[in-house]
Amino acid sequence: MAPRTPRLVVPVCIKKKPWEQSLPLHNRWHPEIPAVAEVITGEVFRVEMVDWTGGVIKDDDSADDVKFIDLSTVHYLSGPIRVLDSDGIPAKPGDLLAVEICNLGPLPGDEWGYTATFDRENGGGFLTDHFPCATKAIWYFEGIYAYSPNIPGARFPGLTHPGIVGTAPSMELLNIWNKRERKLQEEGLETFKLCQVLHSRPLANLPSTKGCVLGKIKVGTPEWERIANEAARTIPGRENGGNCDIKNLSRGSKVYLPVFVEGANLSTGDMHFSQGDGEVSFCGAIEMSGFLELKCEIIRGGMKEYLTPMGPTPLHVNPIFEIGPVEPRFSEWLVFEGISVDEGGRQHYLDASVAYKRAVLNAIHYLSKFGYSEEQMYLLLSCCPCEGRISGIVDTPNAVATLAIPTAIFDQDVRPKGKIPVGPRVVRKPDILKCTYDGNLPVTKNLSLSM
Amino acid sequence: MAPRTPRLVVPVCIKKKPWEQSLPLHNRWHPEIPAVAEVITGEVFRVEMVDWTGGVIKDDDSADDVKFIDLSTVHYLSGPIRVLDSDGIPAKPGDLLAVEICNLGPLPGDEWGYTATFDRENGGGFLTDHFPCATKAIWYFEGIYAYSPNIPGARFPGLTHPGIVGTAPSMELLNIWNKRERKLQEEGLETFKLCQVLHSRPLANLPSTKGCVLGKIKVGTPEWERIANEAARTIPGRENGGNCDIKNLSRGSKVYLPVFVEGANLSTGDMHFSQGDGEVSFCGAIEMSGFLELKCEIIRGGMKEYLTPMGPTPLHVNPIFEIGPVEPRFSEWLVFEGISVDEGGRQHYLDASVAYKRAVLNAIHYLSKFGYSEEQMYLLLSCCPCEGRISGIVDTPNAVATLAIPTAIFDQDVRPKGKIPVGPRVVRKPDILKCTYDGNLPVTKNLSLSM
Amino acid sequence: MAPRTPRLVVPVCIKKKPWEQSLPLHNRWHPEIPAVAEVITGEVFRVEMVDWTGGVIKDDDSADDVKFIDLSTVHYLSGPIRVLDSDGIPAKPGDLLAVEICNLGPLPGDEWGYTATFDRENGGGFLTDHFPCATKAIWYFEGIYAYSPNIPGARFPGLTHPGIVGTAPSMELLNIWNKRERKLQEEGLETFKLCQVLHSRPLANLPSTKGCVLGKIKVGTPEWERIANEAARTIPGRENGGNCDIKNLSRGSKVYLPVFVEGANLSTGDMHFSQGDGEVSFCGAIEMSGFLELKCEIIRGGMKEYLTPMGPTPLHVNPIFEIGPVEPRFSEWLVFEGISVDEGGRQHYLDASVAYKRAVLNAIHYLSKFGYSEEQMYLLLSCCPCEGRISGIVDTPNAVATLAIPTAIFDQDVRPKGKIPVGPRVVRKPDILKCTYDGNLPVTKNLSLSM
Amino acid sequence: MAPRTPRLVVPVCIKKKPWEQSLPLHNRWHPEIPAVAEVITGEVFRVEMVDWTGGVIKDDDSADDVKFIDLSTVHYLSGPIRVLDSDGIPAKPGDLLAVEICNLGPLPGDEWGYTATFDRENGGGFLTDHFPCATKAIWYFEGIYAYSPNIPGARFPGLTHPGIVGTAPSMELLNIWNKRERKLQEEGLETFKLCQVLHSRPLANLPSTKGCVLGKIKVGTPEWERIANEAARTIPGRENGGNCDIKNLSRGSKVYLPVFVEGANLSTGDMHFSQGDGEVSFCGAIEMSGFLELKCEIIRGGMKEYLTPMGPTPLHVNPIFEIGPVEPRFSEWLVFEGISVDEGGRQHYLDASVAYKRAVLNAIHYLSKFGYSEEQMYLLLSCCPCEGRISGIVDTPNAVATLAIPTAIFDQDVRPKGKIPVGPRVVRKPDILKCTYDGNLPVTKNLSLSM
Repeated sequence: MAPRTPRLVVPVCIKKKPWEQSLPLHNRWHPEIPAVAEVITGEVFRVEMVDWTGGVIKDDDSADDVKFIDLSTVHYLSGPIRVLDSDGIPAKPGDLLAVEICNLGPLPGDEWGYTATFDRENGGGFLTDHFPCATKAIWYFEGIYAYSPNIPGARFPGLTHPGIVGTAPSMELLNIWNKRERKLQEEGLETFKLCQVLHSRPLANLPSTKGCVLGKIKVGTPEWERIANEAARTIPGRENGGNCDIKNLSRGSKVYLPVFVEGANLSTGDMHFSQGDGEVSFCGAIEMSGFLELKCEIIRGGMKEYLTPMGPTPLHVNPIFEIGPVEPRFSEWLVFEGISVDEGGRQHYLDASVAYKRAVLNAIHYLSKFGYSEEQMYLLLSCCPCEGRISGIVDTPNAVATLAIPTAIFDQDVRPKGKIPVGPRVVRKPDILKCTYDGNLPVTKNLSLSM
Repeated sequence: MAPRTPRLVVPVCIKKKPWEQSLPLHNRWHPEIPAVAEVITGEVFRVEMVDWTGGVIKDDDSADDVKFIDLSTVHYLSGPIRVLDSDGIPAKPGDLLAVEICNLGPLPGDEWGYTATFDRENGGGFLTDHFPCATKAIWYFEGIYAYSPNIPGARFPGLTHPGIVGTAPSMELLNIWNKRERKLQEEGLETFKLCQVLHSRPLANLPSTKGCVLGKIKVGTPEWERIANEAARTIPGRENGGNCDIKNLSRGSKVYLPVFVEGANLSTGDMHFSQGDGEVSFCGAIEMSGFLELKCEIIRGGMKEYLTPMGPTPLHVNPIFEIGPVEPRFSEWLVFEGISVDEGGRQHYLDASVAYKRAVLNAIHYLSKFGYSEEQMYLLLSCCPCEGRISGIVDTPNAVATLAIPTAIFDQDVRPKGKIPVGPRVVRKPDILKCTYDGNLPVTKNLSLSM
Repeated sequence: MAPRTPRLVVPVCIKKKPWEQSLPLHNRWHPEIPAVAEVITGEVFRVEMVDWTGGVIKDDDSADDVKFIDLSTVHYLSGPIRVLDSDGIPAKPGDLLAVEICNLGPLPGDEWGYTATFDRENGGGFLTDHFPCATKAIWYFEGIYAYSPNIPGARFPGLTHPGIVGTAPSMELLNIWNKRERKLQEEGLETFKLCQVLHSRPLANLPSTKGCVLGKIKVGTPEWERIANEAARTIPGRENGGNCDIKNLSRGSKVYLPVFVEGANLSTGDMHFSQGDGEVSFCGAIEMSGFLELKCEIIRGGMKEYLTPMGPTPLHVNPIFEIGPVEPRFSEWLVFEGISVDEGGRQHYLDASVAYKRAVLNAIHYLSKFGYSEEQMYLLLSCCPCEGRISGIVDTPNAVATLAIPTAIFDQDVRPKGKIPVGPRVVRKPDILKCTYDGNLPVTKNLSLSM
Repeated sequence: MAPRTPRLVVPVCIKKKPWEQSLPLHNRWHPEIPAVAEVITGEVFRVEMVDWTGGVIKDDDSADDVKFIDLSTVHYLSGPIRVLDSDGIPAKPGDLLAVEICNLGPLPGDEWGYTATFDRENGGGFLTDHFPCATKAIWYFEGIYAYSPNIPGARFPGLTHPGIVGTAPSMELLNIWNKRERKLQEEGLETFKLCQVLHSRPLANLPSTKGCVLGKIKVGTPEWERIANEAARTIPGRENGGNCDIKNLSRGSKVYLPVFVEGANLSTGDMHFSQGDGEVSFCGAIEMSGFLELKCEIIRGGMKEYLTPMGPTPLHVNPIFEIGPVEPRFSEWLVFEGISVDEGGRQHYLDASVAYKRAVLNAIHYLSKFGYSEEQMYLLLSCCPCEGRISGIVDTPNAVATLAIPTAIFDQDVRPKGKIPVGPRVVRKPDILKCTYDGNLPVTKNLSLSM
């Protein structure tokens, strides 16, 4: 007899707030957030999830929701899910949890998404010094395809994936996180020159009670207070996986996650219909609610066996991934390059982040010549299936980063032609939704234009 | 009637030294290095090239040649080639030169290559603080495949490409390069924290008369002396293309290069049978001699039309690439991740270079469990068709970089299995060729192993 | 605002019989079968469908249901659906109906399928003279993957598609069909030598009142009687599309169907989780219930514009297909060849069917050496994503047909090795479900085994 | 030390006639044609070959050479090559010879090819009843790409392969061939209805002294006379491999050939720059001279172990192929379908050849609407990388065959558009080279056009 349809272990209702769900969500990492469900290795189970903001961003005609978002509340995760083997013995610290993504997709009845950039004073993005305004594009889905009324002439198949898959950290690991991120927060601006090129602020998001949601732990209790003050934000990817934003982690993929607490306490969320490498606009994938169908295996003692503790402690590991065999097939790619010289002409040392910023800027400006606004292209390159590569990282002083764009996503030929004048320069209307920027920070000028 | 076989415009003889070639080579970028050949747009022409060291590295049983190499002499380039349109009018500054790679390959009779890491005191590499010794692996070719007697059990099809394709810089651009790189050389160690994670030295390679070869310009003349003191080294990729090391730039690809001097003065070299993204071991592709069959078009005024001067001047551009349709096809990929926390546990800010270092280290250590030495895997990941991605660059404070390895290059299944003990731990012999490291710089320890 | 979730225009309930559905199904082609739903061009709508037998084949431990099936009842189709443009004007004869497959999949709650061969006296299959027994394998789905407890050691991602998409024929076209198929039925055995190689019987399935279901037309009425005697069976693909069994017709694909009656009257059914080219075992895909999300456009006058009437009449057209960009990616293929010499050694003239039979037989026998029964491989090659090619059709007297099998679907390496003895010859248990063959027709012997 | 450059074991000079080559060629299959070279398993060796006609077809402006060709002389093969293992023991009957194609390409200095259809009275082709004239298109190569001045607006990367790879037959096998083909020749027209749909004549090509070239065997000797009367023509693919025309058999592929005589006596020829599945125009690939770099292994006793004698004798086997990992990558495909109803409207029984004829005719007529002559498209579909599939072979009475064309080979979008009038109907000039047809056989009319 056929196995049952995947068991729904975490349902969500998109009409309810994250804390009103029958199995309450959480938006922090902490070992003491109680599991809301249990699964057995080998069974295929289903997890539903709200979009990362828990419904704050609307399918409407304004980017105000993006501009004024309270980022202390993201990302809302489904779980934790406790994993047991077929003998009922839970996953244990030191084990490796193999999570296969059998299936995934948008939540039926909620087939839309959005891509956005935050206001420079409230979240920013990779290019926030160039594009300080909050902006938003809405995406609709037609089966495998997404299209946006805000970015006419582009349509592409999604490579849908969860932005976040992670296990709960141990207290020891959590302390490591908080310590190192606090140090960055306090000393980073003086320490890292890269802060003068990348302008997302704050440098790190430290634990905060504001906006904190801890699943089954009742808000206002002393326990809640304590945990909220310790629990790590979900913004960055870390040793437990978390917000790794690997755009190819789609159907048929597998994640091998380290286990730090008994039961593993797996949480997922931040579903993306599609994302470009880097997710450059920050709210940068096609963000949506969704579902996952997962299957877990436990590799006993697998952390020591397979994960490499590069130091300084055996906890400083990273997950391993296997990519599935079903991905959109593209034939032609247009590739933009950047080197580690910043917009002011300053030479950096083998800095792939600076190089990638330059590559993305080059691509945006190039594509804007085909009738688009630069903001349209910034959002598009953040969510379409483009590939960001570290092409050269040894030829001092320049790192070379590249951004490869599948040309088939456009309804026109965007390659350079042999004859000028070229390209349709008809403005593609309408444009993305956009707010004003009310702050005082200077926009990074393109100094070459004034020459 | 059929067009002729591609005209050989730059021949090389691998038994001769670079400066003895009938059309002398050059190893610097300078606008005054005279063209050695002329081509017309639309014609398919052939350029031959020595390997990047001009024959210093031998197909033998020792890595001494790598350890004691004089890096002031690299890379030996073929050209410059002056490009004219069918009316005889040369490419002009401001034009875009479209170079199609019609065909390429090893030089007949010289079908072998090498991958190496330099000694930490003489060139280094991405992971030189972990692997300070000079090492070498020899690769032999069987048609599309490469295999190394030094790395048993791995074999893969090459995605052959030139590491270097570039046009001559103008004097104005050359001055910009020299100024910014000198500043880095002088102040970099104090300025950039990344220097504490990446240990290749020097930070930049400034012009030097030592090792300088300038094509038709006679060595020892005052002109030679002047140009040698101005001419840029070929190590880094820059605005003129140059050493961009884009591993997919193979048959059927196109490069759109900016033109800075009359005739464009196209030079190429540094042929790679195969390379991984990042070319991490520095002498890191499968380096070889080879040939290119090229076809040029001139897009008049194309720089302004298509290349985006992101500033600070209109010269601060980067080439654009189109990737060809014939690449090895892989189905399964194993992906390693790194975040921007260095081996000492220090949190960096959105630093993709730090994250990529961690990802590569993770991959090396993981694969070494399948019977290999870490040095074998370092060299393999430098030259096999692995993909290095910037997966997340916005989730402060962690950049997420990934390294995806096609599993089919191994003769065993290198994926994590559900049962332990696992993996063949039989040592794969022989190992790579290796020298001693005689310096005093400390190796970066894996602190977790001592815990 | 986002478009609504695709409108469900044809629901099915898998617990009900085909004729009990709220919108009754049909299993014949006829212009007078009334439409059960209407859609507008541009809207994405959802159609559900039962499996092709309407639930006769069960997820159980016996192949008796296959052996004794009443094939006069297949295929149960959903529809007809009448298509109007946005002005409410229906598709008209001579138009082209472009149907995009936006999404598709199994019916939630019914995630399983089956592959089978019929008894030689009741349906047969491509190799029924070799395998005369009714057999069955059950398939279960884990997201994108299918696996069968009856064929251990094989697992593959599905390339899900509808076996049948078609428009209603006009009366004129229907008459053409009935006339030509009747002629074949009556004279074929004497006319076509191929009947001595391919043993599926009857040669054609003519209209029959037995088993006939005609949607909204009430059974037993004179109208029903008349139409049932005229209506074409759904077994073969024909000018209206129908049972074309194109295995790549998956998400993102498009079909351009000729319109023969007002409203086009689109019907679909016979959903396949996966199928190999040729669908050789006849009940040969992974057959299942399922859903389609479709979007239609009308190209007015498109038949004349785009479809090529090769004769003898302008109705003798065939649909055109565009294949979608999301398909499983395979790297290694093992290819078996057949030529148009039959098992008895008789030379046929450029006959691709004979050649393909030989290629499939070669593949079955080869793979059976890796521990499988031949029946297991017959069913597997019928439903896995293998490719059947006409490689050579001009080199008299031999057509060359090939069958390419992706090696990754097996958990062992099935390629020929350089050393013998080779291959795991452990019998893979359990085997497929199998009935006895009670007829008297001779099995085609492998004469070479007795030599 | 590196292995030597592949040893050239069979050189050819394209300025010499086939029988003047230093190692004489042969154009028949016979066990007694002496080997011209020896190779050892494991060594990479190089074989050069003339084009299949031995230089009869010229790069000029007339198709007369095609019209008046003497087909008794094709195909000129290089070899036989005797294969020994490293102990000097030759391959023996019953072994399997694994031949890896390490590299291949056009002969340097002869980079062009041709595609042609023969006159209906002198060779014909798959569609000779529609296109009875001799025609020719010349192709030039730019690295991986081919383009033809006779078919403007199409350009594609080649998937270069040898049309013929085979071992020598034993006398026993040769007798089987001659017997079965003679029977077809004598009785075929009355036996096979397919002869009324496919009009290539003669039905088979029996041994003939006319045009016969037997390598080292001196013409005119009694031995020559005897062998010439026995030796099989090379036109069809057979049990020994031979003219299998598998278009994907390119770099990195492997062929497992049965060994029938001591030493295996491997011969190759008929190099194709590119071919479509079916090679429909007969002289249908891009035919050229070329070279192969091969490596052989012997699997002792492998025929019994791996090849499946489907009968009637153990000699009735077919080779197995493994396809290489480097093939042109296409994303979009337009697919044409045919069913087994011939142009006169007659219903055939599951005949894939009839169905494929219809699919090809459909594609030709469709594409001709984009500005081409039908002859241009016939030649193009014969040599471009299109895929011919047997999609359905069980749904009586219709076989469904499909022809999938990668749309990227055209410089215009050839998909059906939603609006009419569509498509550039500007005639693409110049056309292919074409002779008159002087015979009396009727052209198959498109009856629908007169209605």
